[in-house]
Amino acid sequence: MASTKVPQVITCKAAVAWGPGEPLVIEEVEVDPPKPYEVRINVMCTSLCRSDITQWESKVTAHLFPRIFGHEAAGVIESIGEGVVGLKEGDHVLTVFTGECTACKHCVSGKSNMCQLLGLERKGVMHSDQKTRFSIKGKPIYHYCAVSSFSEYTVVHSGCAVKIDPLAPMEKVCLLSCGVSAGLGAVWKVADISKGSTVAIFGLGTVGLSVAQGAKLRGASQIIGVDTNPEKNEKGKLFGVTNFINPNECKEPVQQVIKSITGGGVDFSFECVGDTDITNAALQSSCDGWGLTVTLGVPKTKPEISAHYGLLLSGRTLKGSLFGGLKPKSDLPSIVEMYLRKEILIDEYITHNLKLEDINEAFDLMKEGKCLRCVIHIAKQDQTIM
Amino acid sequence: MASTKVPQVITCKAAVAWGPGEPLVIEEVEVDPPKPYEVRINVMCTSLCRSDITQWESKVTAHLFPRIFGHEAAGVIESIGEGVVGLKEGDHVLTVFTGECTACKHCVSGKSNMCQLLGLERKGVMHSDQKTRFSIKGKPIYHYCAVSSFSEYTVVHSGCAVKIDPLAPMEKVCLLSCGVSAGLGAVWKVADISKGSTVAIFGLGTVGLSVAQGAKLRGASQIIGVDTNPEKNEKGKLFGVTNFINPNECKEPVQQVIKSITGGGVDFSFECVGDTDITNAALQSSCDGWGLTVTLGVPKTKPEISAHYGLLLSGRTLKGSLFGGLKPKSDLPSIVEMYLRKEILIDEYITHNLKLEDINEAFDLMKEGKCLRCVIHIAKQDQTIM
Repeated sequence: MASTKVPQVITCKAAVAWGPGEPLVIEEVEVDPPKPYEVRINVMCTSLCRSDITQWESKVTAHLFPRIFGHEAAGVIESIGEGVVGLKEGDHVLTVFTGECTACKHCVSGKSNMCQLLGLERKGVMHSDQKTRFSIKGKPIYHYCAVSSFSEYTVVHSGCAVKIDPLAPMEKVCLLSCGVSAGLGAVWKVADISKGSTVAIFGLGTVGLSVAQGAKLRGASQIIGVDTNPEKNEKGKLFGVTNFINPNECKEPVQQVIKSITGGGVDFSFECVGDTDITNAALQSSCDGWGLTVTLGVPKTKPEISAHYGLLLSGRTLKGSLFGGLKPKSDLPSIVEMYLRKEILIDEYITHNLKLEDINEAFDLMKEGKCLRCVIHIAKQDQTIM
Repeated sequence: MASTKVPQVITCKAAVAWGPGEPLVIEEVEVDPPKPYEVRINVMCTSLCRSDITQWESKVTAHLFPRIFGHEAAGVIESIGEGVVGLKEGDHVLTVFTGECTACKHCVSGKSNMCQLLGLERKGVMHSDQKTRFSIKGKPIYHYCAVSSFSEYTVVHSGCAVKIDPLAPMEKVCLLSCGVSAGLGAVWKVADISKGSTVAIFGLGTVGLSVAQGAKLRGASQIIGVDTNPEKNEKGKLFGVTNFINPNECKEPVQQVIKSITGGGVDFSFECVGDTDITNAALQSSCDGWGLTVTLGVPKTKPEISAHYGLLLSGRTLKGSLFGGLKPKSDLPSIVEMYLRKEILIDEYITHNLKLEDINEAFDLMKEGKCLRCVIHIAKQDQTIM
């Protein structure tokens, strides 16, 4: 850990996607040293998130291949670039797809996590110079979401790496990088729900179950989970769902069912599927006067949300959130601490553990809806211990 | 003022609409005594609101004619029905189209004005018995919005009559019955804007100008008014508009212009036209992270609001409001007091004063966009003095 050492190019293994929807190939890639304000991370664990699959399948971004996906990860800082503050070699970090520069108008606002410097990166390159840090024999390999964690090493902006307690087990807390935190943040920060509230959650994937968990911890009196997969009934209970509704088993639209069992609609509803029609149903499931609907999902088709004006006129609010409104550097470390104090569940989302070599199996499981979170173990176990 | 006197049917003049879009006819109508929890009001002044015109023109409600329109009014209580609490003969009142029963879940919630007993009445009859209190030779004449103020006398539920300071000039404060208060409430209660905020207002009618006035009083730093009528430029200044934009004179979409002059969008935008496409433009005009759009208008066509999910994902909120979120009995009296202390403008909205006999002229002025508010003086002046 000699910080005066000049970092060199590292050659390591990474799972490279050569084209949309094509199975990943484990390749030897060169990873550049971190440039100013960047850090290079030895990735220990990364979990697979639905959006990795969505973007890997998408032909819209075909020009950004070959590409290294993955963004929900935990690792150890291997080296730092010039000017990096608050992070050093050996620090344990979570990676985040939307950063916190701590200096822009949004970062200092206290009311937004839409960092103007490190917002959602869609071009597959680093923010600073619009270039990649990965290559194979000189050919650039594109990044994904400013993270690219399906690699033994990756380079991210220092604003996209969040220092966490080194006692936190990385193979668990890597889930806090994205999905689980997004759900918790949506409840705690965006909706800011109060004790005794009634809640409806559309979609009981990792995000939706995290909404349930967050709502339970806030003392919600009724947590209605909606999913077409009957297996989510039992899983939902684990995270606080009190009423399970399978829309396929309902004679009337699910929003009517919810209105009936709550006497007019829930206080809060959450769209965690990524379907704009479901956002509409969620809005209709909330009550007159103060009903709040939070959309978390990113729709794969039909990007326009549509809603009858009367739903709003009668006092409803529709709100969106990216990463649950959390500011990563400000908010994530305390969620990690909550896990260490056993105040939140993480292990229960992990249905599978696989090695990097078996990453295509993880993709298959996610595509087939057979897993919640599959953790990909990248580094050898002894490397995770400092 | 002998309250023991049993009220009798009153025969008086009213402007009756016999069919959709047909000129009103001044008729002799019979007005029943108030039933339990109702009051009969000697209407002094009533102003014409755009929604009177919209509903009068609408063929959708053709079955609710003959009908007496009007809902923005001030008057004196002539008699009260059994069980009425907090109101007595001789009280000066404002009428409201959405009541406050003070007892239902919403009235006691502290966070909603969607009274479950006295919410928006759409059937043209009284809430209690679904019958009318107006008739002409036995033929029922339908009510409008639970008020029907284009009549010398009307009967309303006591929850739709708000007692006000008897010193308040009724020919002015009648405007607080609906449009002006809706605009002020949207800013103060729904958006709850803070000092230094930037604001965009789409549509500078009475409601939009009231949003401007409310924003100015809260110390907004920039108040952008958008209207296709160039005359609204000067009028807007009177109420606090700092930048006027006529979309017809812009080379690019108005939301782009607003983004340019505010460096990314306003903190708050308000839709005061009644056009769902404009709601979308208002949402696009607000900033990432914390932009809030409030819809106040009731669209005449295309009831579906449509918005790209990305606008919400990046932290925007879309909220509706009826009557500016105000609880009429709780909130209106203090707004009347503000006028008496010269803290808010009302006189400046009044462009015309007419007698009940000339009400069709008021309709023409409103249809042609030649007036903001036209006050119809119904009772003789001396009747307004107790």
